[in-house]
Amino acid sequence: MRKREVAIIGVGQTKVGEHWDKSIRQLAAEAILSAIKDAKIERVDILYVGNALSGELALQEHLGAAIADFAGLRTVEAYKVEAAGASGAAALRLGYLAVAGGLADFVLVCGVEKVTDAPTERVNSALSLGIDGEYERELGLSFIALNALIMRRYMHEYGYELKDFAGFSVNSHKNAAHNPYAMFRNPITEKAFVEARMVVEPINLLDSSPVADGAAAVVLCPMDMAKDFQAKPVRIASSAAATDTLALHDRKDPLFLEAAYLSARRAYEVAGIKPEDVDLFELYDSFAIMAALSLEAAGFAERGQGVKLAMEGQISLDGRIPVSTMGGLKARGNPLGATGVYQVVEAVLQLRHEAGQNQVKDAHWALVQSIGGVGGTVVTHVLEGPD
Amino acid sequence: MRKREVAIIGVGQTKVGEHWDKSIRQLAAEAILSAIKDAKIERVDILYVGNALSGELALQEHLGAAIADFAGLRTVEAYKVEAAGASGAAALRLGYLAVAGGLADFVLVCGVEKVTDAPTERVNSALSLGIDGEYERELGLSFIALNALIMRRYMHEYGYELKDFAGFSVNSHKNAAHNPYAMFRNPITEKAFVEARMVVEPINLLDSSPVADGAAAVVLCPMDMAKDFQAKPVRIASSAAATDTLALHDRKDPLFLEAAYLSARRAYEVAGIKPEDVDLFELYDSFAIMAALSLEAAGFAERGQGVKLAMEGQISLDGRIPVSTMGGLKARGNPLGATGVYQVVEAVLQLRHEAGQNQVKDAHWALVQSIGGVGGTVVTHVLEGPD
Repeated sequence: MRKREVAIIGVGQTKVGEHWDKSIRQLAAEAILSAIKDAKIERVDILYVGNALSGELALQEHLGAAIADFAGLRTVEAYKVEAAGASGAAALRLGYLAVAGGLADFVLVCGVEKVTDAPTERVNSALSLGIDGEYERELGLSFIALNALIMRRYMHEYGYELKDFAGFSVNSHKNAAHNPYAMFRNPITEKAFVEARMVVEPINLLDSSPVADGAAAVVLCPMDMAKDFQAKPVRIASSAAATDTLALHDRKDPLFLEAAYLSARRAYEVAGIKPEDVDLFELYDSFAIMAALSLEAAGFAERGQGVKLAMEGQISLDGRIPVSTMGGLKARGNPLGATGVYQVVEAVLQLRHEAGQNQVKDAHWALVQSIGGVGGTVVTHVLEGPD
Repeated sequence: MRKREVAIIGVGQTKVGEHWDKSIRQLAAEAILSAIKDAKIERVDILYVGNALSGELALQEHLGAAIADFAGLRTVEAYKVEAAGASGAAALRLGYLAVAGGLADFVLVCGVEKVTDAPTERVNSALSLGIDGEYERELGLSFIALNALIMRRYMHEYGYELKDFAGFSVNSHKNAAHNPYAMFRNPITEKAFVEARMVVEPINLLDSSPVADGAAAVVLCPMDMAKDFQAKPVRIASSAAATDTLALHDRKDPLFLEAAYLSARRAYEVAGIKPEDVDLFELYDSFAIMAALSLEAAGFAERGQGVKLAMEGQISLDGRIPVSTMGGLKARGNPLGATGVYQVVEAVLQLRHEAGQNQVKDAHWALVQSIGGVGGTVVTHVLEGPD
């Protein structure tokens, strides 16, 4: 049975930040209407909403219907898809399945998160709902603490110091400076990174991606209809996902993101490309350690060498493998369930050569990877540009 | 492009009730392993978890990975799908799309909810996350209060009394008596119904489906492979879904479930059957008023006449249109996000002629409909039995 090729024909996004004046539905509608305008479609068959914590932080479940209703898509079938930090990417994957399989023609995928309506204490507590509730959170571990454990082990195992990780945040902040949708558009220095106050040692404030409000959306349709709507359709060359143990302690090797490896391997295989073909990599830099492990799992560095790519400047816009080209989670901001869709929107802008001052020269292949929890779910897409 | 026919080749369920000794993962794993055993499959491509409130009530999001991990499906891609009370049915619909489109062969759909770990106050508050948070809940409305408003309007508009609704609960309790997985296996009388204490007038205790713990699972595969695994595969003849306004006050007519009507019409059309062909109807009797409106929207009664089917005994096992044949939400129990999958499991048992004392004679076509909120999302499936 032959799959249909799937194109992304429209993208939309809101600024990431603290939207005190907008509810979760308003944010989602803004991104959706913007994506529909970009795609010039007049029909939506299914709406997939990627969201991690709307029940806890925005006091609204039944988010599919809530957003379909509010965005002018009343009667359109709509679902919320949750996979922690990979929620947005998971929504895209399910939307891809519907179009590739021929069960829908026009699919809208929206990632959204509204964080700032909830008190800080509730936000911190909610963030840990993505880790193992029975064997990790119950013992006092938090999401950031697990990342800190992994980072410390990585430093110990491979002999790195804190400053060796600075390159990821410095790169992200540099790239965000020219992204009008980014939360933090201020450049930072390696010195500022090293001196930043600790949050959970060895993870400091300038290593932590800021949790924020935001919504992003993409419109999918079959590739053979794409040119009717969008002069520069971007092809989803492959879509893959895998899970790993939810709890870190259940892994044979805490420094290997198996789900990232498995989904990237599958994504390369289906797309028919290799890591060296990739022009940019929108990776999941919730913390620098995740960026490093993602680079390794996706085949850009040997085990323990991911950090070196940042140290040597190879992740910059003109480097060997540009990452977080519009600011990444660290500086564009991390609206949790929306983040996976933001990553794709940014990759699409790069592949359409509409990334402005952040344009990666001759970008044709983009890899996009989103991580839920500390690697419990990883979703990987390969996108191919029209040029 | 031709769709593949999709079969249900395995079902599993836990008893519905208060499982103080089991976590949400244990419940889900129990149902999954039971469904896998029934289907005799050795591979799962995708796991869809239907769940409404795990973050709020079981303090666990990232539920796809959590359950894949715990149920022996490590590395299998897995997602949580949420659509309030229709979550389980929505998970089935998305699983159906994957198999029908040829993007997966073996799909596991599990609905699960763990309610009793949370204090009652938190449960009541969480239940209202499925209604409109900004325009309904903020004004003090709850999920049950909205149902009460609809019921009162229905009584006023069509001239019914409380006792006229008794038939739904009496039928459900009667059928549950022979279902070993049901929560309430005690028969009730019309007199007990009329005298039951009010919860939110005119909805009383014996009209309210009990929120409870439970998990149910089904295994899907392409119809042309089904016979290798299951002697009695049940065909998903059609799958359809629609949304309506989230808020009740936004509807032109609060007594018409438009999403139920639209999804049922589509389901009939694709399956090529009419209401008179349906042998049993697993409807969503969260409250009697929803059962009545569902019967009307699905074409079994004229507007305002749905209640009459219960009054006249036409919904019993040997009636014109048997409903809630294994006890329905009212007496089998209502494990929220799991309910939609329970409804399907029960319909499959009927179509396999394995429903024991509750067997609907010569059952061949089953209609299954699940309702999220007060009709914001409705998912409808038509199932065809092997005989």
